[in-house]
Amino acid sequence: MRQTHNDCFLRALARKPVDRTPVWLMRQAGRYLPEYRASRERAGSFMNLCQTPELACEVTLQPLQRFRLDAAILFSDILTIPDALGLGLEFLEGEGPHFHRPLRSASDIAALGRIDPEQDLAYVMDAVRLIRRELDNRVPLIGFAGSPWTLATYMVEGGASATFARIKSLMFSDPPALQQLLSLLAATITDYLSAQQAAGAQALMLFDTWGGILTPRDYQRFSLHYMAQIVASLRTHTHTADTPVIVFTKGGGQWLEAIAATGCTGVGIDWTTDISEAFTRIGATTAIQGNMDPGVLYAPDAVIHAEVASILDAVGNRAGHIMNLGHGIQPGMRPEAIAAFVDAVHELSPARHHGPA
Amino acid sequence: MRQTHNDCFLRALARKPVDRTPVWLMRQAGRYLPEYRASRERAGSFMNLCQTPELACEVTLQPLQRFRLDAAILFSDILTIPDALGLGLEFLEGEGPHFHRPLRSASDIAALGRIDPEQDLAYVMDAVRLIRRELDNRVPLIGFAGSPWTLATYMVEGGASATFARIKSLMFSDPPALQQLLSLLAATITDYLSAQQAAGAQALMLFDTWGGILTPRDYQRFSLHYMAQIVASLRTHTHTADTPVIVFTKGGGQWLEAIAATGCTGVGIDWTTDISEAFTRIGATTAIQGNMDPGVLYAPDAVIHAEVASILDAVGNRAGHIMNLGHGIQPGMRPEAIAAFVDAVHELSPARHHGPA
Repeated sequence: MRQTHNDCFLRALARKPVDRTPVWLMRQAGRYLPEYRASRERAGSFMNLCQTPELACEVTLQPLQRFRLDAAILFSDILTIPDALGLGLEFLEGEGPHFHRPLRSASDIAALGRIDPEQDLAYVMDAVRLIRRELDNRVPLIGFAGSPWTLATYMVEGGASATFARIKSLMFSDPPALQQLLSLLAATITDYLSAQQAAGAQALMLFDTWGGILTPRDYQRFSLHYMAQIVASLRTHTHTADTPVIVFTKGGGQWLEAIAATGCTGVGIDWTTDISEAFTRIGATTAIQGNMDPGVLYAPDAVIHAEVASILDAVGNRAGHIMNLGHGIQPGMRPEAIAAFVDAVHELSPARHHGPA
Repeated sequence: MRQTHNDCFLRALARKPVDRTPVWLMRQAGRYLPEYRASRERAGSFMNLCQTPELACEVTLQPLQRFRLDAAILFSDILTIPDALGLGLEFLEGEGPHFHRPLRSASDIAALGRIDPEQDLAYVMDAVRLIRRELDNRVPLIGFAGSPWTLATYMVEGGASATFARIKSLMFSDPPALQQLLSLLAATITDYLSAQQAAGAQALMLFDTWGGILTPRDYQRFSLHYMAQIVASLRTHTHTADTPVIVFTKGGGQWLEAIAATGCTGVGIDWTTDISEAFTRIGATTAIQGNMDPGVLYAPDAVIHAEVASILDAVGNRAGHIMNLGHGIQPGMRPEAIAAFVDAVHELSPARHHGPA
């Protein structure tokens, strides 16, 4: 494969010198874009949008046509794996994900089969290949998966939850059953990310949306332990040994050292952590991705500009920063606000760097 | 007033020696109790339950009749203040709080009047007086309020929110308007807590449910700053100077030192923080309340017992611990699970203490 023209994101992940701070945004392809809503309309359903490589490719590329982004991220959903495992995923309008066959007992878990992501999630790999072709090496492509704990949460709850009653009940009542599920998911996610890499993904990210609802002990035991397994497995496979991996636990600010100790390349942080302190804590070994409060995107452009400056000031001239939000873009946000964010990084960050090596 | 017979809670708050660790639970009066549901039914509406002192007293005392608790907490809602300010509070079945006249502009905020909690929230003070009489000094009574930031969040959003789009928009677009609202709320909450103390509350607690959605800088600026004002004001008034104050920011585990620096008597912590580390960080000056994961209450009694032991072990023989959950009891929990929790504290904690001074 040819060299990626813009390798700013990959260089920063490797904590190498860059000309300017790379920038991308979680959920950069999404409902806040009118062109996304048009694609979504044509797809008929959200699942169909994910499962049709041409459409997934189309929406993946949309934000790159508008904004000067330094990475693309595969358009997909973290729940493709549970769906392939037979849980029957549906997205209900305004209600979020819903599984027709949630896991309600240890025997439901024991009955789960194994899948081969290459085969059973071929639509994802087709999308990755198509996106890489269409990207033509302009910027790198990020592949991703949900963390085992996060997927288990949805699979056991049957969808989103405010109380997490079912997953907590399982975790405290029958930890071996949960661990069986998490082991299966860790193995499956490893295969899934490995397949995405083989199809063309140049960096991989684990989204641990719900790790932050756990105690430090249970986070280690039920979330981080399995993410560490995934990172270690990817490192032992020849073709993924050098693929950068970013781990992001929302609400994980108290556990950055432990996350970095998985051996991941980068750690995503949300906005409740001071990014300067995050660099002090783990910046010597790990790149850091984040961490503007997405709520700033509701503000006027001048405020967005000032917030970007404030984060760049906090990072200073330390290597290994990838600018991002601390969580995903929300549907009601103005595309112009995203432009203001990206433009501010382009305008303000070069002065912080001392040119490429 | 006579001495409270069981002063274990107040002694622990003062970091004095105790015979055993005091225990109470956030939302200990609530829907998980069949007798609460009966009272709620008789009240007709949730607001009527809050506004009828006899009923508020009845539900406040219900958990004390079942469990060996070391404190009662006034049954009320944090949104009584915005309601008294004229926003028109209603609780919609299954949807939570809703304001008929939310604050939608700087001029809505400027138009807010001042209230006199003694007068305008007389039903709360009547409830406090009645509860104190009925408690007959068996255990101390805790009064409480929401934090200025948390109240502002509901007042601007108009109810619960998943995205906090309106409050974040206001915060980043017009900080002086938000600060005007927060100042008004801080003054009102100070008067409200002071009135609760005058009516008989023996300890006061500030619930900062939404401080954890802020960056460290904005938490300081928009939440903690105003809670510190309240604590400082209570300290300067003769009759509240010695009343213990507990500050609880859900998701505030990264900011415990700053919370303790308000001069509060105790800090509530949620379960994402290791309680042993919390004691190391702030235990020399401040009592600590918490912090079992409420999700443990979905587990069998033996697991609840083991989790209580684990928290008591982490605290060791350090003074100033009040056992509690890291957040409120949820409606679906079994009353028997609460009993197992309370009983475990009674059974296991005496061995950790060396008798009273």
